[in-house]
Amino acid sequence: MSHIEISEVGPRDGLQSIAPVMATEAKKAWIAAEYAAGVREIEVGSFVPPALLPQLADTAELVAYGRTLPGLTVAALVPNARGAEGAIVAGAHKITIPVSVSETHSLRNVRRTHAQMLEEAARIAEMVAAQPAERRPRFEGGLSTAFGCTIEGALPEAAVLKLAEKLMAAGCDEVGLSDTSGYANPAQVRRLVRQTRAVVGEDACNGVHLHNTRGLGLANALAALEEGITTLDSSLCGIGGCPFAPGASGNIVTEDLVFMLDAMGLETGIDLPALLKVRDILKEALPGVELYGFTPEAGLPVGYEAMR
Amino acid sequence: MSHIEISEVGPRDGLQSIAPVMATEAKKAWIAAEYAAGVREIEVGSFVPPALLPQLADTAELVAYGRTLPGLTVAALVPNARGAEGAIVAGAHKITIPVSVSETHSLRNVRRTHAQMLEEAARIAEMVAAQPAERRPRFEGGLSTAFGCTIEGALPEAAVLKLAEKLMAAGCDEVGLSDTSGYANPAQVRRLVRQTRAVVGEDACNGVHLHNTRGLGLANALAALEEGITTLDSSLCGIGGCPFAPGASGNIVTEDLVFMLDAMGLETGIDLPALLKVRDILKEALPGVELYGFTPEAGLPVGYEAMR
Repeated sequence: MSHIEISEVGPRDGLQSIAPVMATEAKKAWIAAEYAAGVREIEVGSFVPPALLPQLADTAELVAYGRTLPGLTVAALVPNARGAEGAIVAGAHKITIPVSVSETHSLRNVRRTHAQMLEEAARIAEMVAAQPAERRPRFEGGLSTAFGCTIEGALPEAAVLKLAEKLMAAGCDEVGLSDTSGYANPAQVRRLVRQTRAVVGEDACNGVHLHNTRGLGLANALAALEEGITTLDSSLCGIGGCPFAPGASGNIVTEDLVFMLDAMGLETGIDLPALLKVRDILKEALPGVELYGFTPEAGLPVGYEAMR
Repeated sequence: MSHIEISEVGPRDGLQSIAPVMATEAKKAWIAAEYAAGVREIEVGSFVPPALLPQLADTAELVAYGRTLPGLTVAALVPNARGAEGAIVAGAHKITIPVSVSETHSLRNVRRTHAQMLEEAARIAEMVAAQPAERRPRFEGGLSTAFGCTIEGALPEAAVLKLAEKLMAAGCDEVGLSDTSGYANPAQVRRLVRQTRAVVGEDACNGVHLHNTRGLGLANALAALEEGITTLDSSLCGIGGCPFAPGASGNIVTEDLVFMLDAMGLETGIDLPALLKVRDILKEALPGVELYGFTPEAGLPVGYEAMR
């Protein structure tokens, strides 16, 4: 039975996309409850200036809190070297710099060209390498808009591969493919995952970040799994998306993803009934915010345990 | 480029599950508009007593109407021999008898045991064989609850295969696997499609009827495609489900399915922008009924044509 790692990105990708600011205590309760349900990787926030994203102003505190949960990989987004410094000081286990394959999107999202982002990645890699082993986070280059961009549209696959190579050359430990705009289809996921792994090595490309914007999220996840991907990002209640990619919204729903993997006989370490109960925390902490999920609405199948 | 047949089941599976009765003229407009968008197989109704399902009382008229559209395969559901007689008289090109793998579900749904349903199938097969070639419909045995049942839970795969064999022995031209309850997962779809085709022959198992109850509809469709399935049932706006399987609802959304296939480079013959406009007919004819679909909400990607 293969182990698949679910990386919960709701506290970062989910909360950064909605207006209400969730109280730090509610976030901790959310993180603790997912941890209790068996989730072992959580992206708790992003090291951006609080003025830009007040929703994530407590990221350092959440990293510290996450570190108190044994065996949890505490992940954080870092848009630049300054953010990475904050993440390292706080003690994140994994940091991701999002670099958009679409340069137009990169300029709008973080106001930086590819060359500037690669420089930033190189500075972060240096910083990471200078840490003592026990405080050295794993450093991922996240290839945003890898499957298409709401501004530029289709992007050449060669551009994705080239940027992946450059990020590895800049010192990233791994790269991940992100469907920031919800443009991916399963055939493309297969192709790009295969090609990227061929270019950077299988060990350096294990995760994908897929959205469900056009309903293809789980089909794309299936395609990724079948190409050997072992870490899948998703968001509880499907909250989130990218606020800078207009019209793009909707992470994969963690609950539906876990149901699919579980039913397929893949091992996630997650207790699905317990995970479904974590929704109550979001319902209470985010009144008025639309929560998604088919499995939560339909409930688990009759005799579910016997069906696995 | 492979051709995938989309079999639109909304006028049958969709309308039978909702309370409002759609006017016959609106149904004709719907059928005509999907035909104009390129859909070439439509299940227009079910030959059940109007007292049971008043929503489908005009099925014979719709079959006659569908026959005026050149190249359209007009399909209809037939719960028994009497229904099949009606379908044959009306001139359906394809008739499907749903036989539930779960005998409990069969008893509740059509009040018949497996033995009785197989007898019914044999009588229909005789009737079909007696028709002159030009009025002889293709006769499918639909294996309902093939992936699990809301009453019995998990069902042995051997039971599905055995029933498939018996339906072929009774004289069906083909069998189809139906996820009536929305219990299927991609691994199971692969296994059951492969095994069923091994038992009845590839030519006798080309279609699957999948639901999106737990959000896995398109992932399951992808798995089926990869096993060689070439006909996929879906419902415009995702309306429908099975009214006799409590908690089970939600056909695959035709629009999202076409988007996936189209984006993957598979040929459906369907013009997606034209298909998206057909929703307006349902919006107007079914006020208050919940319509589903991610692609319709998000819109087509920027530069969509270039991305295919």
